[in-house]
Amino acid sequence: MTIDTAVLGLSDAHTARMHELYRHLHAHPELSMQETHTAAFILEKLTHLGLETFLCGGTGIVGILRNGDGPVVGYRADTDGLPIAEDTGLDYASTTTGTLADGTEVPVMHGCGHDTHVTVGLTAAQLLTERRDAWSGTVVFIFQPGEETGEGAEAMVEDGLWDKAPMPSIIYGQHVWPGLTGTVNISKGTAMAMADSWRIIVHGQQAHASQPDESIDPIVLGAHMIVRIQTIVSREVHPMKSAVVTIGTFHGGLKENIIPASAEFTVNVRTFDVDVRERVLGSLRRIISAEATASGAPEPVIEEITSFPQCYNDPSATEDLMAVLGEVLGEDAVIESPPVMGSEDFGLLAEAIGVPSVYWFFGGHPQGLLDGDAPVPGNHSPYFAPAIEPTLTTGVRAAMTALLSKVGTA
Amino acid sequence: MTIDTAVLGLSDAHTARMHELYRHLHAHPELSMQETHTAAFILEKLTHLGLETFLCGGTGIVGILRNGDGPVVGYRADTDGLPIAEDTGLDYASTTTGTLADGTEVPVMHGCGHDTHVTVGLTAAQLLTERRDAWSGTVVFIFQPGEETGEGAEAMVEDGLWDKAPMPSIIYGQHVWPGLTGTVNISKGTAMAMADSWRIIVHGQQAHASQPDESIDPIVLGAHMIVRIQTIVSREVHPMKSAVVTIGTFHGGLKENIIPASAEFTVNVRTFDVDVRERVLGSLRRIISAEATASGAPEPVIEEITSFPQCYNDPSATEDLMAVLGEVLGEDAVIESPPVMGSEDFGLLAEAIGVPSVYWFFGGHPQGLLDGDAPVPGNHSPYFAPAIEPTLTTGVRAAMTALLSKVGTA
Amino acid sequence: MTIDTAVLGLSDAHTARMHELYRHLHAHPELSMQETHTAAFILEKLTHLGLETFLCGGTGIVGILRNGDGPVVGYRADTDGLPIAEDTGLDYASTTTGTLADGTEVPVMHGCGHDTHVTVGLTAAQLLTERRDAWSGTVVFIFQPGEETGEGAEAMVEDGLWDKAPMPSIIYGQHVWPGLTGTVNISKGTAMAMADSWRIIVHGQQAHASQPDESIDPIVLGAHMIVRIQTIVSREVHPMKSAVVTIGTFHGGLKENIIPASAEFTVNVRTFDVDVRERVLGSLRRIISAEATASGAPEPVIEEITSFPQCYNDPSATEDLMAVLGEVLGEDAVIESPPVMGSEDFGLLAEAIGVPSVYWFFGGHPQGLLDGDAPVPGNHSPYFAPAIEPTLTTGVRAAMTALLSKVGTA
Amino acid sequence: MTIDTAVLGLSDAHTARMHELYRHLHAHPELSMQETHTAAFILEKLTHLGLETFLCGGTGIVGILRNGDGPVVGYRADTDGLPIAEDTGLDYASTTTGTLADGTEVPVMHGCGHDTHVTVGLTAAQLLTERRDAWSGTVVFIFQPGEETGEGAEAMVEDGLWDKAPMPSIIYGQHVWPGLTGTVNISKGTAMAMADSWRIIVHGQQAHASQPDESIDPIVLGAHMIVRIQTIVSREVHPMKSAVVTIGTFHGGLKENIIPASAEFTVNVRTFDVDVRERVLGSLRRIISAEATASGAPEPVIEEITSFPQCYNDPSATEDLMAVLGEVLGEDAVIESPPVMGSEDFGLLAEAIGVPSVYWFFGGHPQGLLDGDAPVPGNHSPYFAPAIEPTLTTGVRAAMTALLSKVGTA
Repeated sequence: MTIDTAVLGLSDAHTARMHELYRHLHAHPELSMQETHTAAFILEKLTHLGLETFLCGGTGIVGILRNGDGPVVGYRADTDGLPIAEDTGLDYASTTTGTLADGTEVPVMHGCGHDTHVTVGLTAAQLLTERRDAWSGTVVFIFQPGEETGEGAEAMVEDGLWDKAPMPSIIYGQHVWPGLTGTVNISKGTAMAMADSWRIIVHGQQAHASQPDESIDPIVLGAHMIVRIQTIVSREVHPMKSAVVTIGTFHGGLKENIIPASAEFTVNVRTFDVDVRERVLGSLRRIISAEATASGAPEPVIEEITSFPQCYNDPSATEDLMAVLGEVLGEDAVIESPPVMGSEDFGLLAEAIGVPSVYWFFGGHPQGLLDGDAPVPGNHSPYFAPAIEPTLTTGVRAAMTALLSKVGTA
Repeated sequence: MTIDTAVLGLSDAHTARMHELYRHLHAHPELSMQETHTAAFILEKLTHLGLETFLCGGTGIVGILRNGDGPVVGYRADTDGLPIAEDTGLDYASTTTGTLADGTEVPVMHGCGHDTHVTVGLTAAQLLTERRDAWSGTVVFIFQPGEETGEGAEAMVEDGLWDKAPMPSIIYGQHVWPGLTGTVNISKGTAMAMADSWRIIVHGQQAHASQPDESIDPIVLGAHMIVRIQTIVSREVHPMKSAVVTIGTFHGGLKENIIPASAEFTVNVRTFDVDVRERVLGSLRRIISAEATASGAPEPVIEEITSFPQCYNDPSATEDLMAVLGEVLGEDAVIESPPVMGSEDFGLLAEAIGVPSVYWFFGGHPQGLLDGDAPVPGNHSPYFAPAIEPTLTTGVRAAMTALLSKVGTA
Repeated sequence: MTIDTAVLGLSDAHTARMHELYRHLHAHPELSMQETHTAAFILEKLTHLGLETFLCGGTGIVGILRNGDGPVVGYRADTDGLPIAEDTGLDYASTTTGTLADGTEVPVMHGCGHDTHVTVGLTAAQLLTERRDAWSGTVVFIFQPGEETGEGAEAMVEDGLWDKAPMPSIIYGQHVWPGLTGTVNISKGTAMAMADSWRIIVHGQQAHASQPDESIDPIVLGAHMIVRIQTIVSREVHPMKSAVVTIGTFHGGLKENIIPASAEFTVNVRTFDVDVRERVLGSLRRIISAEATASGAPEPVIEEITSFPQCYNDPSATEDLMAVLGEVLGEDAVIESPPVMGSEDFGLLAEAIGVPSVYWFFGGHPQGLLDGDAPVPGNHSPYFAPAIEPTLTTGVRAAMTALLSKVGTA
Repeated sequence: MTIDTAVLGLSDAHTARMHELYRHLHAHPELSMQETHTAAFILEKLTHLGLETFLCGGTGIVGILRNGDGPVVGYRADTDGLPIAEDTGLDYASTTTGTLADGTEVPVMHGCGHDTHVTVGLTAAQLLTERRDAWSGTVVFIFQPGEETGEGAEAMVEDGLWDKAPMPSIIYGQHVWPGLTGTVNISKGTAMAMADSWRIIVHGQQAHASQPDESIDPIVLGAHMIVRIQTIVSREVHPMKSAVVTIGTFHGGLKENIIPASAEFTVNVRTFDVDVRERVLGSLRRIISAEATASGAPEPVIEEITSFPQCYNDPSATEDLMAVLGEVLGEDAVIESPPVMGSEDFGLLAEAIGVPSVYWFFGGHPQGLLDGDAPVPGNHSPYFAPAIEPTLTTGVRAAMTALLSKVGTA
């Protein structure tokens, strides 16, 4: 099929408005599941464009753009910022703060580029509204909160997203990635890893440092758990499959001459295959429990912190999309890439209704202030902030191409 | 030899004054090496009794009681409190605070009974001053600061203690111990363990949780160190010798999805034999260094936190003392006991001049408020506070007996 | 290009002769690098066909079939059996024995199907000799000894294989695989893993079981090495790359009440990427050495047992071959498959002269005596023995197709 | 009490006969529980002296010497040799062989000096027989087999030793020890360690080295068990108590490229206290079981190989014996020594009937052929063979003193 590329065209007015949106969003980031102002801002813009809107999952917004008969297509943009102190030196840098669950006030920054995602989504909504003549069908815009904590997609689904919005036949989403200027990068099949994070509280028995036989030493026990956990990847995962089991934190003890009563550590598991994930998590539970038994300690407490689902690109839908993106952006601008071990909760939105989805990365252009040799500041860096252009235009063209490829048959 | 037990006799006035001293000291504890008010208080009392006095090692006080020809004998009492919030409910409980090295203000408590040590020392000085007729020689009272941190004895020796005070032929010291009402407990030979504490900073290389191959994982490395360190006691120490190697703390990482750049742990080593200590510490260094090499990590940093020397009771002097204590306190009140794995810097004072020393424990009587079945609150507990009597009288009688056994031949 | 499939045709006489060859070879297996009778047998057959022949690398045979101008193509078949007691019950089962390096006499069996490889090679040589009219060029048949021990390819190259034989532009090879009846399975790029095996001798210090402090315990040291080695795969290999580090054996100690002087273990490393291999082997050396240091033990001895090189299929040559095999065998019979973690020294032959090579698996049909549900006995099983047909015919057709695709332009 | 030392006197004839006995026994050692010729030899000698005798526990011999009213005293000598090839170069060196349980023929040697024990026992029986006038009571001589394997004492007790022999009020025993010339060494209380040996069979699941995920790796599992077991001594045993846990053997795997189905190791535990033994063995079971669970492996099989009981010297009986030995041998020749971590099944004989026992070491004089600096060959060495004198005379005088101290009141 062929896209009417005229519909993608951004006039100077469009571009100016888009940049204004972006600067505003970048300067006003909010923490996950607290995106109240961002939600109000999006709601106002969508309503103004004439979309049907509703709040969903707390601070999530859905905008439905109906345009006659035809396919229903979903498009998702995530909206939350991060507890990072921005250090980009930009005139539109964030100076806002937020409050963590434990009450701490922290600086907040759009350190993962979700501001570009919202801007691209709103701009696509505007273009599609203005050119209802060029397509036919329905687009469901999903502005999802809480991606960073893996909470938002689940919250929207549980709040009845698919009871309230028309069911799409496919859902698209994309993420800005620094350094890929002008291109999109897509994986066929698995696109991003599942990620599961747990907190493990290891209970022992406190005693003076000179009385180990009166203790159950939770630090020695924790150390043996960490050592033993290494065998999951080294011996239990098929050598040609991928899994990472990282213990990101370990904390126990207050004073060198006291064996503490407990210790705790967190573990982060990344896998691509559901089978591998199940085996790794099962082995983790088995090892943690058995090592406690080996120490004569009580059963450790395992708390799930976050769980990011698989992000799987339907292969046939991905091939179709790559073909049409190649036409619009140029063959060289569409790169098939292997899956990445990063994680996303995007996949949950389509999984909930059993429809295909495709997710890709679009190029964020590094700030001009960087000299040529400097490494590009990555996502979650205090220096992260792609240059506004061509970043945003690339994103809009990719989003519009994907949407029009499904509804542009008018 | 026989002690003139009349000299030990405490009149009602003595007792009243002693209790007053104790209540004051208990209510005004100070942190290690910050015992300025305590030092001034002791100085005032000793001067008033007519002793020669001098400050030594910061907040240490020496009082010299010269009484004609005869042996020179040393007696040491330590003076510092602990950063513990007292919870005894006593009317003379501490409500004071102190400031830690890092600036934190903390509650302070005489949670290890050093207030009884000072009271006993001052009372013995008074009795000996009043009864100069009954003995002949010189007693050097050493009120030592900073025992809890292992700093005070070294500070006094380095500040010229033995250049300024007459050199004793023996030094005595004692420690209150809850639950031994009315008795003294003495070890022949080794009395308390040497204790060495180190902080180990393990440097790795930070990376995202999904990129272990980009990291040198300091948590996995630290865990292997802790596991490997277990072999020191299990395989390197003679099965009939004692050693404890406790890792009291292990801390690394801030977030489950980041492999941190470093981790740190503290280790506390207790030994009785100089040879065993040397081997254990050498093996610790060897293992810590080699495990870092095994991970391809840089050499870890090892910082010595504290080092408590051997507390060794000269066997012959101990036998003499036990005999005379048996005469005065009764045979049943003098108990020979095995060494304890706790530690002290008392030994350093005599070691510095190569003279014998003897250290023992005297009975702290539990508070009457305890019912019979309750466990006796131990040293360093917020409930620690022996009943004033017979605790103090036992301490005074033991101290006087020891001193008079050397100088009471007049 | 198109193959003249008439050349592939096996007459009844061809087939009968081929089966006779196979039965003889199967009944007379020889151990690696001791294939003297097999070599004489092959030599006699090739000479009889009129090929130029020479012995190379001990028991290796090269047969050169010159047929006018045109490309030079290599074809390799390996010739050795295994120290396994055959238990197939076949009337042509092996009853022979061989002598291991240590003097032990052991049963020998063609338990990996190299007898099919030799049979296919000899039959291809016969067909090409008979139909010199149908092609033009030179085929170099390499009958390689010692594949099981990774010695043969190296021995032939070092014995001047490529000084004596004309240099081919490509080398082909194939391996029978049970259960793939009628098909060939090919990987593009990496086809089989590199495999490195080491023996590690850990020296400690002997002592009575009751005197661990007099020992350096090589069993505890070896256990820590094994545990520590798990971190190579779990933390040092990129999660999307493959590596296996298996400790196949560990042996130490003769009696429960003696700490032995030494222990030894063997390690087998499998990797696909040269970079990964280098890192894994480097980390192994680092860990083994550092753990010995951690125990205060002398540097362990590391002996390389075998080293199997990469088996890499030139992608473009593989695509060409797959296309032509598809034509001849049918599209469904040519399966692209991922690389396998098994190993081969085939790759060395082409690597030595920098020419491309392609290696594939051809279907071994299970013996009819198996009922449908029984698992197919795998390579190295005492029950391994593919049914003679269609196994051999599949192998001959695949070999001929590959060779003719290069030289069949006449 | 005072010993009539005249009874101890060895005439030249006594000495000559004793040396002849010894040379014969030394030249004809037998393996544990196979001491048939030794038993016949002893039986003949005892019968000839007029003692009541009976076989007990297979190759054990009991000789009862009744001499009127008075106490019954036991004396035990063990009789077995070791599977060692003697290399002493003595003219009476052993050249005999024996057959192990698995059928292997091995050289046999009196490498632990049990030949001196038998000689001393027989000579004491002779002296007591000749001087019935000098004492009154009954002596029960127990010539026990199978000490080296911990089987003999149990076998005798189970065969009804104490149903058949009169019950003694105390049992004595002694062991030659090289280098203590002319002295006896005795511990008050615990004299030798309890020793428990187990074989642990770790079942996993076999797989090819390249398929760890198909395996349960018993070598990695065994390594984790060995590592984890180190924590028993390092963390679970009171620092002032003794325990050794040695893994003397570990064996698993036949080939570097196969993950084996199982592995096995042996563990040897030495303790002095029943409580410590119980805790250590309990922790061993707990760790072995839990580590198997951590691997998802079946419960390992634990087989007890040997169990040596406590060898405890009744303190009061020991003091009595030391006093009388001091009188006879001289104060300097009687040395109180700490317990040793070696083991004995002697204790079982007295434990079975709840009577006290005392066990000591008597001085073995090194062979004259040694120059002064050479280390004395220890027990179980191929060079072990104390000089005949003064070794045997020391042993006889010690045995006679002990026996007469109980029955010599006539």
